[in-house]
Amino acid sequence: MLDQALSQKLRQIVGENYYRDDREALVAHSYDGTPMLQSLPDGVIYPDNTQQVAEIIKHLAEHRVPVVTRGSGTNLSGGTVPVHGGVVMVMHRMNRILDIDLQNLTATVQPGILTGDFITHIESLGLFYPPDPSSMRISTIGGNIAECSGGLRGLKYGTTKDYVIGLEAVLASGEIIRTGGKLMKDVAGYDLTKLLVGSEGTLAVITEATLKLVPPPKSKKTMIAMYKDLYGAARTVSRIIEAKMIPATLEFMDNPTIRVVDDYAKLGLKRDMDAILLIEQDGDPEAVERDIERIREICESEKADQIEVAKNQEHAEKLLTARRSAFTALARLRPTTILEDATVPRSQIAEMVLRINEIAQKYNVTIATFGHAGDGNLHPTATTDARDADEIHRVELAFEEIFEAAIELGGTITGEHGVGMVKAPYLEWKIGKTGIEIMRGIKQAFDPHNLLNPGKMFANESRKRVVLNRA
Amino acid sequence: MLDQALSQKLRQIVGENYYRDDREALVAHSYDGTPMLQSLPDGVIYPDNTQQVAEIIKHLAEHRVPVVTRGSGTNLSGGTVPVHGGVVMVMHRMNRILDIDLQNLTATVQPGILTGDFITHIESLGLFYPPDPSSMRISTIGGNIAECSGGLRGLKYGTTKDYVIGLEAVLASGEIIRTGGKLMKDVAGYDLTKLLVGSEGTLAVITEATLKLVPPPKSKKTMIAMYKDLYGAARTVSRIIEAKMIPATLEFMDNPTIRVVDDYAKLGLKRDMDAILLIEQDGDPEAVERDIERIREICESEKADQIEVAKNQEHAEKLLTARRSAFTALARLRPTTILEDATVPRSQIAEMVLRINEIAQKYNVTIATFGHAGDGNLHPTATTDARDADEIHRVELAFEEIFEAAIELGGTITGEHGVGMVKAPYLEWKIGKTGIEIMRGIKQAFDPHNLLNPGKMFANESRKRVVLNRA
Repeated sequence: MLDQALSQKLRQIVGENYYRDDREALVAHSYDGTPMLQSLPDGVIYPDNTQQVAEIIKHLAEHRVPVVTRGSGTNLSGGTVPVHGGVVMVMHRMNRILDIDLQNLTATVQPGILTGDFITHIESLGLFYPPDPSSMRISTIGGNIAECSGGLRGLKYGTTKDYVIGLEAVLASGEIIRTGGKLMKDVAGYDLTKLLVGSEGTLAVITEATLKLVPPPKSKKTMIAMYKDLYGAARTVSRIIEAKMIPATLEFMDNPTIRVVDDYAKLGLKRDMDAILLIEQDGDPEAVERDIERIREICESEKADQIEVAKNQEHAEKLLTARRSAFTALARLRPTTILEDATVPRSQIAEMVLRINEIAQKYNVTIATFGHAGDGNLHPTATTDARDADEIHRVELAFEEIFEAAIELGGTITGEHGVGMVKAPYLEWKIGKTGIEIMRGIKQAFDPHNLLNPGKMFANESRKRVVLNRA
Repeated sequence: MLDQALSQKLRQIVGENYYRDDREALVAHSYDGTPMLQSLPDGVIYPDNTQQVAEIIKHLAEHRVPVVTRGSGTNLSGGTVPVHGGVVMVMHRMNRILDIDLQNLTATVQPGILTGDFITHIESLGLFYPPDPSSMRISTIGGNIAECSGGLRGLKYGTTKDYVIGLEAVLASGEIIRTGGKLMKDVAGYDLTKLLVGSEGTLAVITEATLKLVPPPKSKKTMIAMYKDLYGAARTVSRIIEAKMIPATLEFMDNPTIRVVDDYAKLGLKRDMDAILLIEQDGDPEAVERDIERIREICESEKADQIEVAKNQEHAEKLLTARRSAFTALARLRPTTILEDATVPRSQIAEMVLRINEIAQKYNVTIATFGHAGDGNLHPTATTDARDADEIHRVELAFEEIFEAAIELGGTITGEHGVGMVKAPYLEWKIGKTGIEIMRGIKQAFDPHNLLNPGKMFANESRKRVVLNRA
């Protein structure tokens, strides 16, 4: 519990109803989308505007109370768990679209708007905001910015970072800064905008964002290809890119995922397939037709067992269902689902999937893999049971080895979920001791008392690297 | 002069011929592309590989000797002038292409390669690296990364930042770090890659870069439109974007520029025009045809006095000559040419050009404006004489007011040339005192003894803002 003078002050700032420290509020904000992590905050606050955020932060800083800023808490790396207690600041009330500028093709929004709602509005204006994290119906733009969320369209259109061109943020001191603007070019000093994107709430509280919009593609086409041979699927991915086509979507599911999805969604998928690719191209109709035709040829020459091109929107939706239901289908199998996002150069996808399977077998755990093949961002997903300490330990060892394999193949420990608590012990594997020191220095420059989302990104101790012994 | 033990050590590291402190070498590296700035270094060093760079930096750091890293020195903001002496490190020997990866569509290069040479090679492989700063025939990729160079294709394709996905760099301590990789998604900690891009050599020495390549457009078409009314040209720019077209190039020249260019290149331009737009679209042939046709309609409805669509490559080159020769033509007029790059949201271009003209008149100086209309990145260019102290003073006052106007219109003090020495006193206008403090904190985290390109970006004193008095 905060001391009473401080909680009194917080109530004055936001109004009686918008600061809560009742048990229900505390429990509801003690966890996020990450399994097996929970920690009670001391209070929960719901600011309505930037000025309130600044005042809240100022008072919390005076009392050295940590603050964890969050939207919907869909985080998968423990990024919004208040592990050091303090106040959870929920941004849902700050959910307005402040400006849509059709001449400059920008939108300025508050962080609490749901990404799906924002996209729906933007599309109703005939415009396009490409970042499409799978969580987008419930996650917020602010959360997407904090994590630099990716999505299915990342390969062709980039991730959240590529669309954030200006920010307003409250610093650890309570001061307000503005970075960037409605500008496609701005090199006035270090790029604080891109630095804050993906900083996981550890550097500042984002209170407003200016986003770049683009013209929407005129048409889209969807297809799937199924393979008995994993390498055939992997070669298809590489050959599409080598043929100088960048599909809008290029998704992958492995055999364990295919079987679970088919059980769940009854799509009549071939259960003996090693891999399915879901491919979409968008753009001008002629170009889309031509690309899809060439992609079909590549799939055929790589001996795809079955290829299906959607005849219409309804058919496309059916094909998309397979990929979209992967997580839900897997989550039904066992009490606990742990979704990871080890990422490799796209040329290493087949190798990585094979390694994941080897590792799962070695530790006798169930891991299904699906994900964004086009950008090498895989989601190895363990279905397990948090109550079985022994199995959970083996799952952890398996993921540790999966991270190590990703690094070894030129990849990274996280492609779009963030470091948070879960991957903090592994960050050094990717960026080295020196990289950690530099990042700690940046953190220090922004947040000298370590009050903004403490306990995230930086581990007390880095994990020792496993020595991989493969014959 | 460095002390003899140190210069002896530097000679040992790179070999006798690659450390120089003779007068000729010092003078040749005492200035860059910025007029009226010069300062002698103590030595000039030419490393051949990353290990040498690390050793050089380690020894310089021990002796607290500053180092200014540069490529060809085309900088326009005094960014590579060794204003605190020390050693200029020239990266031209590190000019190899280390890897072209066709499966991942990446190129890994050393910083000293000329951008134009790199692009020629990439294009010979049927691939595309879009950033095209006007200096590209003589500037280096390393310099482009240090400055986050833009170019004519920035509107549609983004700037250097959007194509750098991995870096190797030597820190102020002499330690080597690696950031990013051949990865389209990587959120392992703060984004050091994007932070180093545009950091003007003040945070680390870039020794290797992994660049994203993209499939090239299949066709391109070029046109120009001339206007008696500046606002007609500006409205054309806005209406093209509002019609959801993003041209590959959308360049602008004002009346003073048109007249000078016509004198120089004898293109038969109409000298009474207020503005010329140079427009290119690229992509699939059908889409290009359709866009160019729609753009022509917009130009007509905005009362363009003359519209010319290139019939073939030769014709296109002729149209492009007008814009390409702008700087050269202006540079012939008077002994000193000062090229600035104040940038505004594209909707404010007409307003900005009018303000520039007003300001030039007020201070009785000659300023011609051309630039990248599509992304609001204008190049007001003063033709003057460095020997005329009074006129130079008036030019400086005029630019000061131009920066202020850019900020007032939601813009920035620099779109693609960097802060360097020239714009350091104005940086606070864009990012505020708090922004400067944060940036100084980042600098401190990377370079605690202020040895990497000191005297850049941060001014001893910020300039007071002029109070603009307009009726």
